[in-house]
Amino acid sequence: MLLRTEILGIESGGKPVVFLNKLDAEEIGIAASGRLNLVSKDRSITAIVNITSSVRKGQIGVNDEVRRALALRRGNAVDVNVAPFPKSLQFIRNKLAGRKLLYGEIREVVKDVVDGNLNESEITAFITALHIQGLDLDEATSLASSMVETGKQLELDAKTIVDKHSVGGVPGDKTTLLVVPIVSAAGLVIPKTSSRAITSASGTADRAEVLMPVDLDIKEMKGVVKKCSGCVVWGGALNLAPADDIFVKAEYSLSVDPLLLPSIMSKKKAVGATHLVVDIPTGRGAKIKTIGEGDFLAKDIIELGRRLGINSHCLLTYGEQPVGFSMGPTAEAREALEVLMNRSQVPDLVDKACHIAGAVFEMVGMDGGYGLAKEILQTGRAEKKLREIISLQGGDANVKPEDLALGKHDLPVRATTSGQVLWMDNDLLVSIARAAGAPKDKGAGIVFNKKQGDKVREGEILFTVYAEKSRKLSRAEELLSMQNPVGTGDRMEMFIHKVKESPVVKRSFVLER
Amino acid sequence: MLLRTEILGIESGGKPVVFLNKLDAEEIGIAASGRLNLVSKDRSITAIVNITSSVRKGQIGVNDEVRRALALRRGNAVDVNVAPFPKSLQFIRNKLAGRKLLYGEIREVVKDVVDGNLNESEITAFITALHIQGLDLDEATSLASSMVETGKQLELDAKTIVDKHSVGGVPGDKTTLLVVPIVSAAGLVIPKTSSRAITSASGTADRAEVLMPVDLDIKEMKGVVKKCSGCVVWGGALNLAPADDIFVKAEYSLSVDPLLLPSIMSKKKAVGATHLVVDIPTGRGAKIKTIGEGDFLAKDIIELGRRLGINSHCLLTYGEQPVGFSMGPTAEAREALEVLMNRSQVPDLVDKACHIAGAVFEMVGMDGGYGLAKEILQTGRAEKKLREIISLQGGDANVKPEDLALGKHDLPVRATTSGQVLWMDNDLLVSIARAAGAPKDKGAGIVFNKKQGDKVREGEILFTVYAEKSRKLSRAEELLSMQNPVGTGDRMEMFIHKVKESPVVKRSFVLER
Repeated sequence: MLLRTEILGIESGGKPVVFLNKLDAEEIGIAASGRLNLVSKDRSITAIVNITSSVRKGQIGVNDEVRRALALRRGNAVDVNVAPFPKSLQFIRNKLAGRKLLYGEIREVVKDVVDGNLNESEITAFITALHIQGLDLDEATSLASSMVETGKQLELDAKTIVDKHSVGGVPGDKTTLLVVPIVSAAGLVIPKTSSRAITSASGTADRAEVLMPVDLDIKEMKGVVKKCSGCVVWGGALNLAPADDIFVKAEYSLSVDPLLLPSIMSKKKAVGATHLVVDIPTGRGAKIKTIGEGDFLAKDIIELGRRLGINSHCLLTYGEQPVGFSMGPTAEAREALEVLMNRSQVPDLVDKACHIAGAVFEMVGMDGGYGLAKEILQTGRAEKKLREIISLQGGDANVKPEDLALGKHDLPVRATTSGQVLWMDNDLLVSIARAAGAPKDKGAGIVFNKKQGDKVREGEILFTVYAEKSRKLSRAEELLSMQNPVGTGDRMEMFIHKVKESPVVKRSFVLER
Repeated sequence: MLLRTEILGIESGGKPVVFLNKLDAEEIGIAASGRLNLVSKDRSITAIVNITSSVRKGQIGVNDEVRRALALRRGNAVDVNVAPFPKSLQFIRNKLAGRKLLYGEIREVVKDVVDGNLNESEITAFITALHIQGLDLDEATSLASSMVETGKQLELDAKTIVDKHSVGGVPGDKTTLLVVPIVSAAGLVIPKTSSRAITSASGTADRAEVLMPVDLDIKEMKGVVKKCSGCVVWGGALNLAPADDIFVKAEYSLSVDPLLLPSIMSKKKAVGATHLVVDIPTGRGAKIKTIGEGDFLAKDIIELGRRLGINSHCLLTYGEQPVGFSMGPTAEAREALEVLMNRSQVPDLVDKACHIAGAVFEMVGMDGGYGLAKEILQTGRAEKKLREIISLQGGDANVKPEDLALGKHDLPVRATTSGQVLWMDNDLLVSIARAAGAPKDKGAGIVFNKKQGDKVREGEILFTVYAEKSRKLSRAEELLSMQNPVGTGDRMEMFIHKVKESPVVKRSFVLER
């Protein structure tokens, strides 16, 4: 059927979308969310259909993606036909039915996701099916490989390329800002890509951005790594695994994360990593709740790494309180810089960074890894290297911690009883930091005076919340008035909470990529 | 945050949708498909978010649903805040995790579906989870009840209200057009609602519409039933279970149907049925493939009926070929009328209709049901009753079969071998009828000269395809050139097909509501 083009002037984030009048849709025999083949002159594209009464009969409203792909102007004729169901939809249905998917089938699904041939609901169904039916290591390998193949890859000449990753879930984790300079100061190549916060108060890319630009393209990234053997860039601009960026949206809405493993490993494969250390923060308030669960995840990571040709080790780390004394992009960048400059002592952060860097060193045959990492940190070589990276990525190599300003609105929170800090509620702390404006407002966040085990007296400041905008500080204050994120006292209380009626059980969910 | 209204002039089928600029979305802290609370003066609404660069910073593009709900004009200020996740989303996540849902939880999900508080992906996730995790009879009961409670109900004064339903899947099934007049001619109240075709060549509403208007509202339907104790109306305009109309879209796209049972039973409950006969067509080429599967479904229907206060019986019927000699709205309406007028003999159709009507009679205590049904049919009382219904619904009571014209383009298909008709491929026949234009083009369809077991000679016409438009007949012809829908010969061939490489396994899927 021939329809006349109506330009809608809407962008849909890369997806080709058209709007049809109800009568035309019936005549063509297509329902909302169906797929149409559009042909204009010698160009063609498949688009997802919306049905509306605001487009007149005989017309087809096109979004900017379709307009560009077909080089359309208002009034141009478009030949419209029902597109056959993509084969990949059948594979999704088979997964729904509990069938294992083969490599070629998964490849087809991933390709259609990237090409915009599957609509949001179909992608959600795939994620849901993977979550419920589970995916075995064959399928995880197929997914990781397919995500690499449908994206860009970083090609470096180095024989050995190392990398580190955290499965995430512990707040305030600025470890990467220490590990990258330590490892590259030792001469190892570490082309580190990082994510921005999705559910957290700050991602490594958010923290690093306080110090330097992080949205480099793949050519610029390669240039930096060639010159100083390390970098800290945002992965989102690199298009390393575009399918994953689409999958993660569906995962976020459902609070499920079946693609955790393929997502991590595809991005490591795409930068050519040969050796990888994965940090698995473990415990109440972390993504991975128990040591047993952490060990199982480690086993899968190691095996998936083997299949992809990435030698992988994992470290389980304590995840029941924030790392270091700060949360929020600026506060964390400042803390990392102070530690690299040996201006302040943050035992847990230093310990974690040296364990991870040390594990990297040992994987490539350098003995006494932990000690070596600590030495590179304490002698200032890591600081020097970070400043080199900052400079190459376009930041100010002479940046000082005091240049990095926290939000000007602050709220100190004091202990209501004396004793010691017994527990810290990671989820609630994240909610407070986000209410205060993190990660969007870089100066928003939390700075701690006390951590677990520290002695406190009634009235002493436990932590201070910072915000750039007073109305956001008020939101954080409101949360604090309802629940207490840091418990103090002489001993743990036995009572947790009472259940009097069917509760709305809500599990905390951490998504980091 | 305050934003200025931009009217987009788009309708979204009842769902409130807004478009934000990327920068505003970041500032508010909301992602695409998220939910915003909108307030303007004393009105408020929750809307799903799209993010686009075509709406300028500081503006909010609203669709017609939002414009109307908030009485907005271009430039009006709207106060915009992130809406909390609806509680129902947590229940969907719990079902994803394999938890059984309680009545109150399912009620909340269904309510949020009807109110537009859940986006398409979330609804798909719910359907997927129900499909994979399964729903037990408690959950099916909760779903059916919730769907009734969130919709309209028909209130009749009758003590006994009967109904019939087919789970569908067999083509050419015009049985309802016989059962309703037979049953109501016997004085029983049967307020029959029917569906239009979704995946089939014709739904009962499509067939009935050839004879009379079917899009009555609930008051008009009540008027017809009060006067003649029966009706055949389209359920879609009645809003009996609006949640189901939304769920069915997600089911269609995924080719899954976990809501089959709650969907059927909610609509029967909504019209106040006290006695119900459910037809379960069974066999290769039907929705239900085996007799064992049919018996299990019958067991669930009977128990679900008991819980909802509907006395239910089921009939398993032969489903491996079309019912009667016709497929497509006009051809089927004509065949039903000819049988009611005793002008033609269609043994399988008459047999099926009398078994179903007979089962209804016996449920309400009238003995010899099959014989009674046949008598009402053969004495012309059923024809008289149908004409009464046609007249009350606004059709021509004197309609003659020859008034009902098939499409003027036709294609006879002949036997290539002599012998007998060995099999008929329902799925392929449906595809051919749909390619020819059914159900949209009412005159499109197939008329059979032969059915299973009939003797044929080479060159004899097996069936004729009809179309209203020649290009649609060509599409049907193309399908016929690739595959043969009716097998003739002396005996069944042993060879089915060869598999040489990993095939794209595709199961046929039938969705009827």
